[in-house]
Amino acid sequence: MMKLGFLILVVCIAALMLLFWRANGPGEKERGLVLKSVEHPAGVTGIMFNEDASHFFHARRAMKKLSLAEVEAFVDQYADTQIKAMLFNPNCQRTSYDSKVWTPVWKGLDPNGPDNQPLFASVPTNEQKSARAWIQLAWQLNQDGIDPYKVWTERCRKLGIAPWISMRMNDIHGVHDPNYYLHGDFWRAHPEFRRVNYTEGMVGDWSDNALDYGHPEVREYHMKLIRELAQRYDFDGFEMDFMRFGYLFRPGHEAEGAKQLTEFIREARRVMDAAEKRVGHRIALSARVPYRPETALLMGYDVATWAQEGLIDWIVPTPFFQTIDNDMPIDIWKRLLLKTKVKIAAGLEAGISPTLSFPRQGNSIETLRGSAASYLVRGADRIYTFNMFDSVPADPRHHKVMSEIGDLKTIRGKTRRHVLTYHDVAAPGEPKIYQLPVTTYPGAHYRFRIHTGPKPDTEEVSVMLGSETGAFDASTLTVRVNGFVCAFSGDVKLQNPAPTGPVCGYSVPKSAMNEGYNLIEIRALKAVTVNWVEFYFKGS
Amino acid sequence: MMKLGFLILVVCIAALMLLFWRANGPGEKERGLVLKSVEHPAGVTGIMFNEDASHFFHARRAMKKLSLAEVEAFVDQYADTQIKAMLFNPNCQRTSYDSKVWTPVWKGLDPNGPDNQPLFASVPTNEQKSARAWIQLAWQLNQDGIDPYKVWTERCRKLGIAPWISMRMNDIHGVHDPNYYLHGDFWRAHPEFRRVNYTEGMVGDWSDNALDYGHPEVREYHMKLIRELAQRYDFDGFEMDFMRFGYLFRPGHEAEGAKQLTEFIREARRVMDAAEKRVGHRIALSARVPYRPETALLMGYDVATWAQEGLIDWIVPTPFFQTIDNDMPIDIWKRLLLKTKVKIAAGLEAGISPTLSFPRQGNSIETLRGSAASYLVRGADRIYTFNMFDSVPADPRHHKVMSEIGDLKTIRGKTRRHVLTYHDVAAPGEPKIYQLPVTTYPGAHYRFRIHTGPKPDTEEVSVMLGSETGAFDASTLTVRVNGFVCAFSGDVKLQNPAPTGPVCGYSVPKSAMNEGYNLIEIRALKAVTVNWVEFYFKGS
Repeated sequence: MMKLGFLILVVCIAALMLLFWRANGPGEKERGLVLKSVEHPAGVTGIMFNEDASHFFHARRAMKKLSLAEVEAFVDQYADTQIKAMLFNPNCQRTSYDSKVWTPVWKGLDPNGPDNQPLFASVPTNEQKSARAWIQLAWQLNQDGIDPYKVWTERCRKLGIAPWISMRMNDIHGVHDPNYYLHGDFWRAHPEFRRVNYTEGMVGDWSDNALDYGHPEVREYHMKLIRELAQRYDFDGFEMDFMRFGYLFRPGHEAEGAKQLTEFIREARRVMDAAEKRVGHRIALSARVPYRPETALLMGYDVATWAQEGLIDWIVPTPFFQTIDNDMPIDIWKRLLLKTKVKIAAGLEAGISPTLSFPRQGNSIETLRGSAASYLVRGADRIYTFNMFDSVPADPRHHKVMSEIGDLKTIRGKTRRHVLTYHDVAAPGEPKIYQLPVTTYPGAHYRFRIHTGPKPDTEEVSVMLGSETGAFDASTLTVRVNGFVCAFSGDVKLQNPAPTGPVCGYSVPKSAMNEGYNLIEIRALKAVTVNWVEFYFKGS
Repeated sequence: MMKLGFLILVVCIAALMLLFWRANGPGEKERGLVLKSVEHPAGVTGIMFNEDASHFFHARRAMKKLSLAEVEAFVDQYADTQIKAMLFNPNCQRTSYDSKVWTPVWKGLDPNGPDNQPLFASVPTNEQKSARAWIQLAWQLNQDGIDPYKVWTERCRKLGIAPWISMRMNDIHGVHDPNYYLHGDFWRAHPEFRRVNYTEGMVGDWSDNALDYGHPEVREYHMKLIRELAQRYDFDGFEMDFMRFGYLFRPGHEAEGAKQLTEFIREARRVMDAAEKRVGHRIALSARVPYRPETALLMGYDVATWAQEGLIDWIVPTPFFQTIDNDMPIDIWKRLLLKTKVKIAAGLEAGISPTLSFPRQGNSIETLRGSAASYLVRGADRIYTFNMFDSVPADPRHHKVMSEIGDLKTIRGKTRRHVLTYHDVAAPGEPKIYQLPVTTYPGAHYRFRIHTGPKPDTEEVSVMLGSETGAFDASTLTVRVNGFVCAFSGDVKLQNPAPTGPVCGYSVPKSAMNEGYNLIEIRALKAVTVNWVEFYFKGS
């Protein structure tokens, strides 16, 4: 009897253990919380900062030579900011370090030659100095035995910042120019591997010349660099930056591509698993992907499946380049990734534009505060910055941005701007989604929806409307926010970013404002072409 | 020792039971598989058929009186079709049965009066006969003690079709006319409960006059009808048809609305739970919602949360009315609802249109086959038909549609058409998403993506392009599908639905076609305004 009792007991305990393991999920348990080093104090969300393969060198083009101290200083400047992870991108089609499997940027460089030497022959004259500085300084560091990515990852650890590597998965800078100095040997050697080869003489997209991941050779070529990076550096996270430049497959072949890419990501995870054994700590895997799930899937990124399989730890939904995107559906991403471990960093871009044809301008700290405030309320786990770099000599605004936009606490109460933007990414054959410019029809209602993050506290809120068709007065438009009438407050001079034409302001009753989305309704008594719409929170 | 062993054993077994219960989830277990009666033979997916509150009566307007046999015959005609569930809609703002909590349609009717009696005074003269027939016949059935919804639900069970009730949650037919015969007493009595009250004298949306679910009185008014329906009838499923007319909350108040609506749906589920005890079988709960998760959430429908809480069993993503939507992201819905019990029926509409301004036409069996084939491959669990009704005398095409479009097996090999449509639903302030018309710029590429379901088998595939700018010849456009050149095959005469202008065909190499999305690329040598794009599968 006692024997039987024990036998049952043992079976029960075994079953218990099995169930417990299942209930918690192998992925959850094995992988645990990512990035111990970047875990932030309660309430501080923080920034993931992307540093591209060229900027560090370009910005230091006045220097003839870089020292170890200068390399280290690059990371040190961020010690007291909200940056929790620095993502160092070491490649475009070439690498800024001495790769054995890809083409280093300095291949073909004559270190003693002039700026207009053959390597830079096709670069416009006024850009040769900067181009050359990158290549020369990267070469010089390598000559001096300084690997900046090694220096930076180590330096990050000392400062409590998580070091990451971010690999551009299909860079196509300069592909319209067959002699461009950044083309990799593989890309040059294999025109047959490019996405589209039937647009010669046509107005083709530059993404036609991206490599087609439908070819196993192309996937293997990229996997080789992943393997090299994982063996060469000790990082806390590896980002696959698919959004440079986003288009991996032949147009119309994205569905079969999605399966190939998921298998590719399984392999990338295996590479990280192997690297974890070497470095002795967890390595997170992340992907920069199109701003919304539908567009991502249409382009071959089956993020939900990656998440379900436990392959990735982070995603970074992001626009492409023309404009920061102030309406990425982070709330939908959150629901899509429910009950997976995947965290979301909201990808911010340096530029901003309200319409397909409006010239791209730079974001200001006020517009970046707006974007970040919105995404932090929408549930983003981090704010992610792209193309937002330091300068030499330092611009204090850069340091200020990196010290503010990672946390609602350091945004609230300050002036912030929420500008209506459009979606600058679309899958091949997918309609472009945009709203401006709008020409009003007398008597009709027009509605614009902008997510403004937390409710205003001490800030005063206005709606700003830009017009292509000249200034207007109080009688031209009735403006409501969430149904509440807003008082016309006259002409406004917006600092950049701003439309070229006149801007009128409307004062919003503070009690009208929601957390989250706020709806602007305008009713025109005459025709006005509106090309700029924003919520302006005037604070300190 | 033995005592201790038993004690541990008991604790283990208790813990095991607890864990087992958690691992399987209370919702999963309690609710189990829905709708035993509609489980279909292997491989047959089937149709959910929506019958609205008026059509049955309108179609029988030539009859002076309806008998029980005629009521029963309505359901009997579908006995040998692929319809697995019939969803009977008994209400607009009024009910076609003798409601004690809402206004019956015959309130105000003089059964012996003429067609132009006061109730129908504001109905256009040529529509009075049909309007009156509905009201009169519904009144007569009630006088004769025949409740059609009771007859139909019982009749369905005999035929092995699952009977459902589908309640329109915010119907606004005729709201621009204060004297319209269909207004409910509650709507009339409470102008203060309407969504928007500041568009008098403006070109307002008719949805401005929908009831605002932000008021507890409005929610309770609708819940009363749910309770009455659940007590009065014995159905296998209850559908909340939010897409008549979709807009439940004041513009800009959808986020707080979403929370109120989720609570409303919890209560609806509790009503069904109570009804289950009475009828002794499972009652499924479903919701008809906007075509994609983003738009749904922006309008207040937090479907993912309903699913996570186990509140609903089905959703029906759907367009509004102007056009069937041939690109609802069922694949994204599937991923969003992963690991929940929720099934998806793809909502088809009766009409079709390729552009915002193109007149709505009726779908043909060929275009319906196309839509259904696409959604069945995209993972829809059912095809759902709306506004697709019988006629008296019977039109055999209707029976044919209901016998074919619920299953890939009965679609394959037949002629089907996949027409590029636009999205006719948008949340307030959300941009409209559309692609046509497109005017080509000489030399440029234009891309269109259409999901065509299974690969062609015996069918021959063509691309059809409609032009607003006159006929064109082989030299005008180069057409590719997934990169493969298609041969110009000349002018085509499409049967309706079709554009008004000329149509040219391009023959697609069969090997070029994918399952799922196929990408049409056109390159123009001169300007052509394309207003119609489709894949035509010529079969038997």
